[in-house]
Amino acid sequence: MDRRKFLKNTLIGAGGLVLALMVTGCGVNRQEYTNIVLIYVDDMGYGDLASTGHPTIRTPNLDRMIDEGVTMTQFYSVASLCTPSRAALLTGRYPIRNGMTHINFPNSEHGLPPSEITLAEILKSRGYATACIGKWHLGHLPEFLPTNHGFDYYFGIPYSNDMDPDWPYNPAYLPMPELPLMRNEQIIEQPCVQETLTKRSTEEAIRFIEKNKDQPFFCYLPYVMPHLPLHASDEFQGQSKRGLYGDVIEELDWGVGQLLDALRRLKIDERTLVIFTSDNGPSIQPNLDVGSSGLLRGSKHTTWEGGLRVPFIVWAPNQLPAGKTCMDVGTTMDLFTTLTVLAGDSVPRDRNIDGVNIMSVWQGESKQPHDPIYFYHGNRLTAVRLGKYKLHLWKNVLESTFGKWVKCDSPELYDVEYDPSEEYNIAYENVEIVSHIENEILMFKDQLQK
Amino acid sequence: MDRRKFLKNTLIGAGGLVLALMVTGCGVNRQEYTNIVLIYVDDMGYGDLASTGHPTIRTPNLDRMIDEGVTMTQFYSVASLCTPSRAALLTGRYPIRNGMTHINFPNSEHGLPPSEITLAEILKSRGYATACIGKWHLGHLPEFLPTNHGFDYYFGIPYSNDMDPDWPYNPAYLPMPELPLMRNEQIIEQPCVQETLTKRSTEEAIRFIEKNKDQPFFCYLPYVMPHLPLHASDEFQGQSKRGLYGDVIEELDWGVGQLLDALRRLKIDERTLVIFTSDNGPSIQPNLDVGSSGLLRGSKHTTWEGGLRVPFIVWAPNQLPAGKTCMDVGTTMDLFTTLTVLAGDSVPRDRNIDGVNIMSVWQGESKQPHDPIYFYHGNRLTAVRLGKYKLHLWKNVLESTFGKWVKCDSPELYDVEYDPSEEYNIAYENVEIVSHIENEILMFKDQLQK
Repeated sequence: MDRRKFLKNTLIGAGGLVLALMVTGCGVNRQEYTNIVLIYVDDMGYGDLASTGHPTIRTPNLDRMIDEGVTMTQFYSVASLCTPSRAALLTGRYPIRNGMTHINFPNSEHGLPPSEITLAEILKSRGYATACIGKWHLGHLPEFLPTNHGFDYYFGIPYSNDMDPDWPYNPAYLPMPELPLMRNEQIIEQPCVQETLTKRSTEEAIRFIEKNKDQPFFCYLPYVMPHLPLHASDEFQGQSKRGLYGDVIEELDWGVGQLLDALRRLKIDERTLVIFTSDNGPSIQPNLDVGSSGLLRGSKHTTWEGGLRVPFIVWAPNQLPAGKTCMDVGTTMDLFTTLTVLAGDSVPRDRNIDGVNIMSVWQGESKQPHDPIYFYHGNRLTAVRLGKYKLHLWKNVLESTFGKWVKCDSPELYDVEYDPSEEYNIAYENVEIVSHIENEILMFKDQLQK
Repeated sequence: MDRRKFLKNTLIGAGGLVLALMVTGCGVNRQEYTNIVLIYVDDMGYGDLASTGHPTIRTPNLDRMIDEGVTMTQFYSVASLCTPSRAALLTGRYPIRNGMTHINFPNSEHGLPPSEITLAEILKSRGYATACIGKWHLGHLPEFLPTNHGFDYYFGIPYSNDMDPDWPYNPAYLPMPELPLMRNEQIIEQPCVQETLTKRSTEEAIRFIEKNKDQPFFCYLPYVMPHLPLHASDEFQGQSKRGLYGDVIEELDWGVGQLLDALRRLKIDERTLVIFTSDNGPSIQPNLDVGSSGLLRGSKHTTWEGGLRVPFIVWAPNQLPAGKTCMDVGTTMDLFTTLTVLAGDSVPRDRNIDGVNIMSVWQGESKQPHDPIYFYHGNRLTAVRLGKYKLHLWKNVLESTFGKWVKCDSPELYDVEYDPSEEYNIAYENVEIVSHIENEILMFKDQLQK
């Protein structure tokens, strides 16, 4: 890295000073802000990229993004379900704090509380144009929609694409309307045509970027796929050796390529930061076309690594190193804090914010330990990661579609760096570590009460 | 690829004409031959490279080799045990043909028959200097040693590194001498100091390459690691987050880097072809430091994909494409045929050679289907791959250390491109394909009798 890049990185690392100077009008060029594109796919597994070892899915654009960006191999969603993982991402807070501990359904009357402060609201307050394009799933009633949570623009579906009367695995077992597609607060299509949804979302995102290329923008792109039911456009159907699941991933990869190309074409690639990650691990619907956790144990609906650890790439040419892989721990909540700081703001002080700033990790400088990470399933604390260890208090026994939760006879401890597949319980040899994590839990729960 | 490279590739693809012209003295520059370095690690899993998704093992040199070379994601050893896999590699023939169907032990009185023609013998006859550096395991009695099978030079251990009285998991349950380290036909160290074996093998290989840089050479480098018991040199011990297993892989990766650097330093990188692969999938010794099959099912000692499908990279700057991933099927037996043709020879006609020439696959040109691949465990045919399908006749049920083999109630069929984890038996929906493969088996077995 040359000196200029180093200085630039250091400035950004030190609290988004570049942007701060711009905003306060100190004469810095208007173009010095950093745009943000946050691609958040749905139920894609840790092992579903060519570059994480999938033998029959081609992901050339994601591979290129990895070559040109920073990959984190120990990056977590803090919940292995759509609604809570999205709530944590956008608020930087545990679902147990923001109230979104369970999946929303078409008959849910609640949503992300208006009192929560989203990343979009913060960025909007810093002059960013903001859009949410894809799946929301934080409340479909008007007061909870993206446009009431900091997004200038919304295009997408309000909850999961399986919440439709035509889908035989209807998880809610209740009558529901056909899946709506919305623009801002209006339904524009019902039922939503899912085959073209990845393509249309990509086009919407590029249109938004083109329109806002001369000002800072935040494009939150929670693609609907590869959540079941899978759909791909005509150009991608039947193209992958991995069947429809592979077709869907390859279309998402195409979307990523289109976005990166658009940024280059518009000559804003060097002032845009693009993140690619997933909301949780692959689905566990049996006998269906679902993703792979690779070498990790478990899937969505569990708090094993396969349910929580997700692909993570951050791409920012000239701002971050190229081709760097880092093994530091991070969470989606950290994106809230890191991107807030990048935009020159500080996180709200009137509430607990659980995310930490991991910019220095991306820059390859940090080796400091991450805070403990608390993994809940609903309201129940099921596992904790601290350092290289993960303690399980409850585990999902996959006997039925979504499994059954059982309390561990005694807490199970895994060294998930040595043993990423969580095969060897080492609790008995490490009673002090178990006690230490249990103490951290007590302090966390105590703080939650306050 | 420019025209010059294309022509050169075409020449090589068309039967190693470049070398043939050199050998027949048609005035082509002496330097036009292609050296071969064949790195064959032991029991390394499909998922153990950073670039196949391992989160806590660093393999920067293998990653670079992938960036600069060709990766095959569906490449097989035809047996999931050391001895038969090595016999197939070096003869291009199924172990059922060359007789090496079972593991050799320190009390074995047999070895690879002198009547077999090895790749080393062929290359030696074409003027190549030949060396075997690492683990042999095709007979430790004098007549079976590498120096009697076409290798000018041998440095290494004659059988597996666990065949030692000090190793508590001694697989032979028999008294045996301490592990010998040999140079040519002499024992030079006993017991072999395993901590420095990876380092010393790398150094031996580089010395051999340096000595033979002005003539064609074949350096067969069957590293002893990461077979159990694991050992790493002082510089690597405790360096990996993945424990000793990770340390061992990182030292192997260092070895690969040293080799590639040496080729560049000697300015012979553009006329050397380097292959990296493994003899079979990861060990299944329980509660020990073993590798990962990634998303593949099963391990060593099984004929699930995890036991047979191995990492495969071929690197040949200016001769083969850079950064190419191909999903075509290949086997270690194909290396015998491909490298024989590359050296300007044709394969022996007095016997069945099972390997096929896959040079056009590496060049990105071939889309033709591979012959059926027959996977044996010992003398028993347990599985067959044909096209995208794999049929299992017997399966290893992992109840004990090495599992128990049971005959499938009826053959199980998997589409291993759609379902690389072999989760969904589709035999009942595809009876015609099952019959077709069963017919292929009958023809193959009939031919074996002749």
